[in-house]
Amino acid sequence: MRYIVIGAVAGGMTAAMKIRRNDDKAEIVVYDRDTDISYSGCSLAYYISGVIKDRKSIVPRDAEYFKKFNVDVKTNHEVLKVDTKTKSVVVKDLLTGVSFEDRFDRLIIATGARAVLPPVKGVNLDGVFVLRNVKDADRIKEYIEVKKPEKALIVGGGYIGLEMAEAFSALGLKVLIVEKQDNILPNLDSDMARLVEEYLLQKGIEIKKGTSVVEIRESAGFNKEAVLSDGTKVLCDIVLISVGVKPNTEFLKDSGIQLLQNGAIKVDEYMRTNIEGIFAAGDCAAVYFKLNGRTMYVPLGSTANKMGRIAGENATGGSLKFNGILATSIFRVFDLTVAQTGYTEKMAEQDGIEYEVGHITKPHITQAFPGAEKMTIKALCELSSRKIIGAQIVGTKGVDKRIDVLATAIYSGLTADDLFQLDLAYAPPFSSAKDPIHYVGMVMSNFLDRKKFNCTQEKLLQKMKNGEDFIVLDVRTPEQYQKKHIKGAINIPLEMIYQNMNQLPKDKPIIVYCNSGVSSNIAQNILQQNGFRKVYNLSGGISNVTLPELLEVDEE
Amino acid sequence: MRYIVIGAVAGGMTAAMKIRRNDDKAEIVVYDRDTDISYSGCSLAYYISGVIKDRKSIVPRDAEYFKKFNVDVKTNHEVLKVDTKTKSVVVKDLLTGVSFEDRFDRLIIATGARAVLPPVKGVNLDGVFVLRNVKDADRIKEYIEVKKPEKALIVGGGYIGLEMAEAFSALGLKVLIVEKQDNILPNLDSDMARLVEEYLLQKGIEIKKGTSVVEIRESAGFNKEAVLSDGTKVLCDIVLISVGVKPNTEFLKDSGIQLLQNGAIKVDEYMRTNIEGIFAAGDCAAVYFKLNGRTMYVPLGSTANKMGRIAGENATGGSLKFNGILATSIFRVFDLTVAQTGYTEKMAEQDGIEYEVGHITKPHITQAFPGAEKMTIKALCELSSRKIIGAQIVGTKGVDKRIDVLATAIYSGLTADDLFQLDLAYAPPFSSAKDPIHYVGMVMSNFLDRKKFNCTQEKLLQKMKNGEDFIVLDVRTPEQYQKKHIKGAINIPLEMIYQNMNQLPKDKPIIVYCNSGVSSNIAQNILQQNGFRKVYNLSGGISNVTLPELLEVDEE
Repeated sequence: MRYIVIGAVAGGMTAAMKIRRNDDKAEIVVYDRDTDISYSGCSLAYYISGVIKDRKSIVPRDAEYFKKFNVDVKTNHEVLKVDTKTKSVVVKDLLTGVSFEDRFDRLIIATGARAVLPPVKGVNLDGVFVLRNVKDADRIKEYIEVKKPEKALIVGGGYIGLEMAEAFSALGLKVLIVEKQDNILPNLDSDMARLVEEYLLQKGIEIKKGTSVVEIRESAGFNKEAVLSDGTKVLCDIVLISVGVKPNTEFLKDSGIQLLQNGAIKVDEYMRTNIEGIFAAGDCAAVYFKLNGRTMYVPLGSTANKMGRIAGENATGGSLKFNGILATSIFRVFDLTVAQTGYTEKMAEQDGIEYEVGHITKPHITQAFPGAEKMTIKALCELSSRKIIGAQIVGTKGVDKRIDVLATAIYSGLTADDLFQLDLAYAPPFSSAKDPIHYVGMVMSNFLDRKKFNCTQEKLLQKMKNGEDFIVLDVRTPEQYQKKHIKGAINIPLEMIYQNMNQLPKDKPIIVYCNSGVSSNIAQNILQQNGFRKVYNLSGGISNVTLPELLEVDEE
Repeated sequence: MRYIVIGAVAGGMTAAMKIRRNDDKAEIVVYDRDTDISYSGCSLAYYISGVIKDRKSIVPRDAEYFKKFNVDVKTNHEVLKVDTKTKSVVVKDLLTGVSFEDRFDRLIIATGARAVLPPVKGVNLDGVFVLRNVKDADRIKEYIEVKKPEKALIVGGGYIGLEMAEAFSALGLKVLIVEKQDNILPNLDSDMARLVEEYLLQKGIEIKKGTSVVEIRESAGFNKEAVLSDGTKVLCDIVLISVGVKPNTEFLKDSGIQLLQNGAIKVDEYMRTNIEGIFAAGDCAAVYFKLNGRTMYVPLGSTANKMGRIAGENATGGSLKFNGILATSIFRVFDLTVAQTGYTEKMAEQDGIEYEVGHITKPHITQAFPGAEKMTIKALCELSSRKIIGAQIVGTKGVDKRIDVLATAIYSGLTADDLFQLDLAYAPPFSSAKDPIHYVGMVMSNFLDRKKFNCTQEKLLQKMKNGEDFIVLDVRTPEQYQKKHIKGAINIPLEMIYQNMNQLPKDKPIIVYCNSGVSSNIAQNILQQNGFRKVYNLSGGISNVTLPELLEVDEE
């Protein structure tokens, strides 16, 4: 059997090595148009910033390495065409310019994706970069070393843009991020994205939202000037474009291999394309969202590795099925970690799912232990099944652990009630006796039971805008209230609630809050048990309120 | 309704506060014979070592705090007797010496456990301590400050003994641990316990196994001399006894409340004792092991919190069920983290479960990222169901995350195959594109498929002792082989395997190994596909072999 693999990064090399493990006699040829293969694309920002010093460590393997396993990797070879009838490919040797044909019994397409360049004048100027492969990183590093830019413009506030904001800052550049959407991190819900934004502003990153770059041009004095859609002009010395990626599948256009609208290869759960014997894996292909079975395009290294292994297994006669993704992702920006898994509110609304949502803010380890840091978890549970269907976390420590536990819980179909029951490992350096995950479970169970009512900041703002009649109750100390409170809130500290509750009308909705939801939860209990029927807890407390329209802040 | 809670630490105060949240009108009285309440028992070793500096932070709440919630906590009050007929308790005020009766509608018993003192002469000498509550910690701290001991003897090598070994070391003491069993950490499997032991020896901790202390006596010159069961005499200045705990339930002896052999209160999944209206929670009570439904005594703070909440909920009319424990635990000793969840091999054998076992050693984050550190995961899967049923991890970083993911997977009944499918969060600072969890899944699936055969070091030793006819094959470099190899192993480096495999007999079992199992896995594949039928991989590679009888080491 002769196997051809197109693409020698995560998906492709994982497939090739799985084929080798399964079939010692297989002929395996891998073509890649790049020189660098099998590199860690997710490490590039860290290579640029100098956190990862050694280029070799992000490109640890070359064609020579794979020869040991009798896998023939041909770099600088671009596959121009796939003929599914004759089972052959046309390959161009990019060094000699000579093209030739090669035949296969099985084909694995793993050509990955490339950075999208928006149709903007000036994106091809010197000093305007994308970051997708090792050469991109080399070029950015060299440009910074030689030209010593002082101000970076990042177009696109997704996670690559943010990782690069950190990298540029670490190298001493000032950074401006321009994001077309109303919030950075458009894949997150806006409340969580705003927590990240507040943090970035504190770190000295400038952010412009709801506007895009319409032109980049050379400028006197400074290197470049970018014109934004709102008319602003921005001076900068280096530009990074990070507005998304696009599958490398143009060469398949007339091959008969089915592509989605965006060019991603359509595969089934076995990584099979519509053509027998042809498989696809990694960022060039689409995947299934586990929770609704729908096709999505979420190109991630972790998924590419799984798809590669599945493609390799099934190309050699196996029947390994991919169970789909939860679109789990994580990144770090400075000391902040941002992670998500499963449904966001946005996605749940699109799918018409009835859900409850809650925010909890808790330390990542025992409060008494040095270095305890708070994180905010936003969780979504489906109303009917009580299942946890999504989570987003923003915090400085221990976020990766909680998102992985929640991703495992969602994969397993656990309910909010199950989360409380999980026997997680407790010792003071690692967690609290009640882990943040347990709190998510307890809080969400209460909401689902309709024992407790929750109100997000977005809903509160909506109520205000609608002119609804309700009371906002701040149960913190007068000093805390003085510094910052929700507009129009009245202040009754928790200790005074019994003496003062008769001032409150029993028939009106009351939205109670404290800093992060603990005291307000107690106040909510007391009020409910004393005949107040419509008591809502402001989800996550005022520490998680990021809508400036809701806040009254003492500027002194 | 009048609720009496006996015990004001994790289980008791969680129950009391849950009752308050559920019933604003409830009368709640909590009796505790101690002065300190609601403290973090798991933080005591860190308080002694000075990692946690402030005593207040491990005892953050006093009776005054709970007054705010109308919960009446009476410290220095010991409950002497429970009368289940008259629904009353006899309480002694330890400050005045006066006893009185108090009646209840519902009773929650949460009296915890105390350290076991072995029946050894001299355990009551000055300078001999146990560590269970804040006063114990105070006493040890004071003794060290005043007497400036130089050498500590720790009796019992469980996790409290090891945490205290770190604490004593941090304070400049030399430490000897004496463990009665053949290995420290008797709750772990011996192979994993020996990894911890090797690490402790490197850290300068002295360990004596398979022997116990039979007498402690005053000694001239040094403070104390301990006589061991093997006749050895050990000089030391301070002794910590950490040989286990015992439920505080003697006062219930004639109450009619059912106790287990060891004194733990028998409760059902609702934390109900055999007497209507009487509940128990925390370290004074038994729990169920989720995987076999059997009663166990595993007193842990995390479980106590859950039991307390469940008892409080059900005492106020709820019907919250406890799903049982996985005996998940974790602790840190110096920079090493040791964690476990679910079945150990020992337990699985007792239950007659047929299982596969594997060891994988992988970096906790992308190898290229600074600070990547290896961890060893031992995993057990049930042969018939393919479910993951247990895991033990030893490593320096990221262990807490993996044990929590595995505990969640075991809770959910996931199979080895599911572990590979988990959509865990990947970015270089947090994990690898293939997380150690994914490797556990892939490795165990292969074993369960019987595509691969595995051999643990214990089985290898047994084969040697039985005089079985087999070949041990080392596929590392000659230099590595020279330094350390398995006794009697032959050396064929992986690159030479094709040229040299005809030297190997096809009919004999071959046990192949490398450092941690990756190269040997490849060699195993090649051999299997070339007609070698009985090829075993040495589980975890030579880096995880801890049985000295197996090793031949070049001492130069």
